[in-house]
Amino acid sequence: MTEVLDLAKRLIAAPSVTPATGPVFDAMEAMLAPLGFEVTRFKRGEGEEGSPEEAVENLFAIRRGPPGSKHFAFAGHVDVVPPGSGWASEPFEPEQRGELLYGRGAVDMKGSIACMVDAVAKVPADAGTISFIITGDEEGPALHGTRALIDFMREHGHQPDLCLVGEPTSVNRLGDMMKIGRRGSVNIWLEVEGTQGHVAYPHLAENPIPKLVAMLAELDALVLDEGTDWFQPSNLEITDLEVGNMAHNVIPAKAEARISIRFNDRHSGASLSEKVGAIAEKHGGVAKPIISGEPFLTPPGEFSDIIAAAVKAETGIDPEPSTTGGTSDARFLRAVCPVIEFGLCNATMHKRDEAVAVEDLEVLSRIYARVARAALAV
Amino acid sequence: MTEVLDLAKRLIAAPSVTPATGPVFDAMEAMLAPLGFEVTRFKRGEGEEGSPEEAVENLFAIRRGPPGSKHFAFAGHVDVVPPGSGWASEPFEPEQRGELLYGRGAVDMKGSIACMVDAVAKVPADAGTISFIITGDEEGPALHGTRALIDFMREHGHQPDLCLVGEPTSVNRLGDMMKIGRRGSVNIWLEVEGTQGHVAYPHLAENPIPKLVAMLAELDALVLDEGTDWFQPSNLEITDLEVGNMAHNVIPAKAEARISIRFNDRHSGASLSEKVGAIAEKHGGVAKPIISGEPFLTPPGEFSDIIAAAVKAETGIDPEPSTTGGTSDARFLRAVCPVIEFGLCNATMHKRDEAVAVEDLEVLSRIYARVARAALAV
Repeated sequence: MTEVLDLAKRLIAAPSVTPATGPVFDAMEAMLAPLGFEVTRFKRGEGEEGSPEEAVENLFAIRRGPPGSKHFAFAGHVDVVPPGSGWASEPFEPEQRGELLYGRGAVDMKGSIACMVDAVAKVPADAGTISFIITGDEEGPALHGTRALIDFMREHGHQPDLCLVGEPTSVNRLGDMMKIGRRGSVNIWLEVEGTQGHVAYPHLAENPIPKLVAMLAELDALVLDEGTDWFQPSNLEITDLEVGNMAHNVIPAKAEARISIRFNDRHSGASLSEKVGAIAEKHGGVAKPIISGEPFLTPPGEFSDIIAAAVKAETGIDPEPSTTGGTSDARFLRAVCPVIEFGLCNATMHKRDEAVAVEDLEVLSRIYARVARAALAV
Repeated sequence: MTEVLDLAKRLIAAPSVTPATGPVFDAMEAMLAPLGFEVTRFKRGEGEEGSPEEAVENLFAIRRGPPGSKHFAFAGHVDVVPPGSGWASEPFEPEQRGELLYGRGAVDMKGSIACMVDAVAKVPADAGTISFIITGDEEGPALHGTRALIDFMREHGHQPDLCLVGEPTSVNRLGDMMKIGRRGSVNIWLEVEGTQGHVAYPHLAENPIPKLVAMLAELDALVLDEGTDWFQPSNLEITDLEVGNMAHNVIPAKAEARISIRFNDRHSGASLSEKVGAIAEKHGGVAKPIISGEPFLTPPGEFSDIIAAAVKAETGIDPEPSTTGGTSDARFLRAVCPVIEFGLCNATMHKRDEAVAVEDLEVLSRIYARVARAALAV
């Protein structure tokens, strides 16, 4: 068994459905300390189990290079989504069948974390400073995860020059895609209040639903932009409607809806909240936004070139720089330094029988080692 | 204590929250039998308590006049809506305070039923045939109430020439309004199916909400008619929206809404169901109507003149012939013979501290007696 396969199995064997604490971090610490890393673990959140404030664990590890050397960071998460049912093998008992290693987190992203650890073992300590920014709260509310790690790094003066996030960005083959940006995300709750009454006497009531319908029709017709060089057009989806009126003969007092906007760097969470708020107000309603993340873009250049060269050398493929898909913790790390995401194939992520090709673990480990060396040599 | 006041108290004292059975019908039978009425009571419905099929009781009573004489029917219900809380006296213990008699059903419509009974005592048996069509299921689903009574009457060859329903139609003063018609009512459930997906990948999903929104916008803009000589314009209200999607990042698979249409005699439940169904289909959805009642109209003429004359003689008021308001069992009785509703003041109906003026009971009893005599003399 190769070293990276063993590391991946050890991580998968530590159950860590989000939010993760304890054993999976013990495993991380046991891997990093022997490689010369100074490991700091801390918990945040004091809420009850199952609440958004539930305690989560984070880990920051650093191996300092010579004074003045560059600082390259690997970032990722060791929590996983719930396994669901119907697996051919136990989700938290890593099992190799043929060329695949099965287990929850195999690609998202314990497999990538194993590759990072295996990679740094191949990078000389005097090449520069390397750090690990690892959270147990990426798949959950992400309130006390990477954000808390960033606070910790600021407090302790840790400032990476470049950061690679190990999300599974590859689509059909390892290496075919990296994410140089992600869209921002905002959910907006819409509400119109009216006056309850009997359907037989509508003049005594004020039905809030037609106002909400007109508001939603206007929002649905919005063209936010046509896309940019690096981003697809921003998109607005109406995700929920709610009145909850069981009485057939009653005009309800309130009507609610929720929209979700994924947006590119032509907008900010605040600019969209303002735009939607104005439309809501025009139709007699109110809008309450919760911004999940601002868009980020690390325009193609030095960092993406480093990753592309490493991928090309190990796989022969030119990775496509993309900004598609959902959000990741890169939305927070963008505030620290240029960040790009690159990792395993995502076909089985969040699904049952999540699996990674053993060969991919070995190749990704070599790619990560090339990236780290090149990033520190810039 | 006057006879009609005593009758009203006896009826109120028999608890009969819809659906009514037993004691309140015992009271009815005890009042009608001594007046020469042949009383038939029967139960319908075999469902569990609380289900729409719950057993209800009905009563048909007839006092036959000479062969060939006219047949005049009083119709009404002895079930009442739940009392609710906060009453100054016990809702099922009739209590006279000052000039008012308090109790659930005082105006809707045990008080009117007492007036009908008191009235027929004043009408000679040889004036013609008089019947009572009394149900215990008007305030509830009305599945086994007046409809079952109409079936019973058909089976036994009872065919009234005119029918007065004792609903509380008066508004500010006893006698100021009678209902010569009622609008029809149809509730329509609207549904659009889509394909669930992630908001970050809308091209892989099909959001049903924009289709529902467009459908509802078109329905809300419909002008069904401008009203008629006797009816106000038909009205459509959107009464519910439902998606029930808790996940902020998920495009839901289904979106639902419900509308309620109150319509005049320019339409039928079927014609409106077809019209709405076509609009639903156009937007990729389906419409499932449940017709609660067709409109009825007894155009002003002989019958309304009889009632107006009786009201004028006893109160000095000219009752306004109206078609406003909710539905009543007249929607079923319209199929039997011309029907008009006339009764007590409705200010306190369905409310706490429901009350009737004792004076009104006496006046309404005299009005009903005049109406019965005149209807039989036609």
